[in-house]
Amino acid sequence: MPDIIHIKVRGYHLDVYGHVNNTRYLEFLEEARWTIKEKYFDFPQTHDEGFGFVVVNTNINYRHYAELGDVLEIRTHLSRIGAKSATFKHEIVNAATEQPIADAEVTFVIIELNSGKAIPIEKKWRDRLELLK
Amino acid sequence: MPDIIHIKVRGYHLDVYGHVNNTRYLEFLEEARWTIKEKYFDFPQTHDEGFGFVVVNTNINYRHYAELGDVLEIRTHLSRIGAKSATFKHEIVNAATEQPIADAEVTFVIIELNSGKAIPIEKKWRDRLELLK
Amino acid sequence: MPDIIHIKVRGYHLDVYGHVNNTRYLEFLEEARWTIKEKYFDFPQTHDEGFGFVVVNTNINYRHYAELGDVLEIRTHLSRIGAKSATFKHEIVNAATEQPIADAEVTFVIIELNSGKAIPIEKKWRDRLELLK
Amino acid sequence: MPDIIHIKVRGYHLDVYGHVNNTRYLEFLEEARWTIKEKYFDFPQTHDEGFGFVVVNTNINYRHYAELGDVLEIRTHLSRIGAKSATFKHEIVNAATEQPIADAEVTFVIIELNSGKAIPIEKKWRDRLELLK
Repeated sequence: MPDIIHIKVRGYHLDVYGHVNNTRYLEFLEEARWTIKEKYFDFPQTHDEGFGFVVVNTNINYRHYAELGDVLEIRTHLSRIGAKSATFKHEIVNAATEQPIADAEVTFVIIELNSGKAIPIEKKWRDRLELLK
Repeated sequence: MPDIIHIKVRGYHLDVYGHVNNTRYLEFLEEARWTIKEKYFDFPQTHDEGFGFVVVNTNINYRHYAELGDVLEIRTHLSRIGAKSATFKHEIVNAATEQPIADAEVTFVIIELNSGKAIPIEKKWRDRLELLK
Repeated sequence: MPDIIHIKVRGYHLDVYGHVNNTRYLEFLEEARWTIKEKYFDFPQTHDEGFGFVVVNTNINYRHYAELGDVLEIRTHLSRIGAKSATFKHEIVNAATEQPIADAEVTFVIIELNSGKAIPIEKKWRDRLELLK
Repeated sequence: MPDIIHIKVRGYHLDVYGHVNNTRYLEFLEEARWTIKEKYFDFPQTHDEGFGFVVVNTNINYRHYAELGDVLEIRTHLSRIGAKSATFKHEIVNAATEQPIADAEVTFVIIELNSGKAIPIEKKWRDRLELLK
């Protein structure tokens, strides 16, 4: 089951075309992931334990523009857990019309903040990540 | 009575000092004003009627830093209605501790979007603005 | 030959980890493309002719963090011209050390601003785009 | 003599009105100050010495909109050095037409990063700051 957040499009989200700027969507997706990290991993406490999630790839399709006043629904779940990395799938739709706006796969590694090194995703983290599928 | 919104501080709001970046607060204040404009003035419909609010001055005091995970409460009301401009007062506090974080006065004019000219704030607009005091 | 721009990393580009925020790189890439559009296509004049470039996919790899004071070199060229879309390839390296920081493929279509519809990339536009390879 | 930087207005700087967003100007001013801090104070080295400049007030007047393709000239000097704080004056004009776009006073304190406390601005710092007048 995807986790869901809603964001209402404001004037400061738009760009020269009067549409939400491409860059801004990455903040919306980051907002969705912070919400999830907080809900399931007690962020920012996990952060204080010395671990961080670091994004290594973002692949985003822009399907349709969004405009002032639109309410965007962002649906997020974990689509893949690998040995060294895992991937979130995000779908952004217009909450009123279900029009697809954008979708993205965001792949991350887990690093030890002290060393800055990625760690293998073993049982402890795998079990925690399974909750996000 | 002030209108209130809440914003949770996320990693992308912070800067080199680990605190919410000064610039980001202006987006938080803009978010507060969009909420109000929507609630009282049917924005973005008012926008479609051909009027816009244009900020001519922002005067913001930064009182204390805010950190990852803090919930900020933004309290907004209209503090002044003049002949040609009006002023919003914003107070940002840490919602958990009441620690003052920032406060700002934001002065705006009302423009006709076609001409780009500011209009005098006469009875019709004054009555609408009185609701925000 | 790639076109090159340089951006120095400032405090407001960083996030909770003290590194350039993932989202900010998309603004750096957009800056690179505006520079190119201006140089080869007389933007914003082309824009006034009624055409716009609209990004439909961004696929970005984050290779290494960048820190306060780093000078980033962004190398951009057109890597593909298709029938309906074309793709920019961006490489971001630390200008002092050649450390790869990020690379991205950004696919766009050309739209008529009036209709909002994508147009086929035929000879006129193909010839212009060939200059960017 | 003011220090000068130039920034060209891009599509991602604009908002719903097709003009540079109010918030974005604060990033432009911050860019101007980083340039100065680097030039006169060996930032980010000063930062590594354990001191930071923290803004306590920004008072900005928005005089005229700026549009896609405009080149903005930002002129910055130190207008006041007090016992506990000092103030930068910024003027933003259209570089081609000299049209005033915005002006701002930005007041800051110097803090020890370890304690987070502001320090008095005594001879050593005063002498350094005098260079910016």
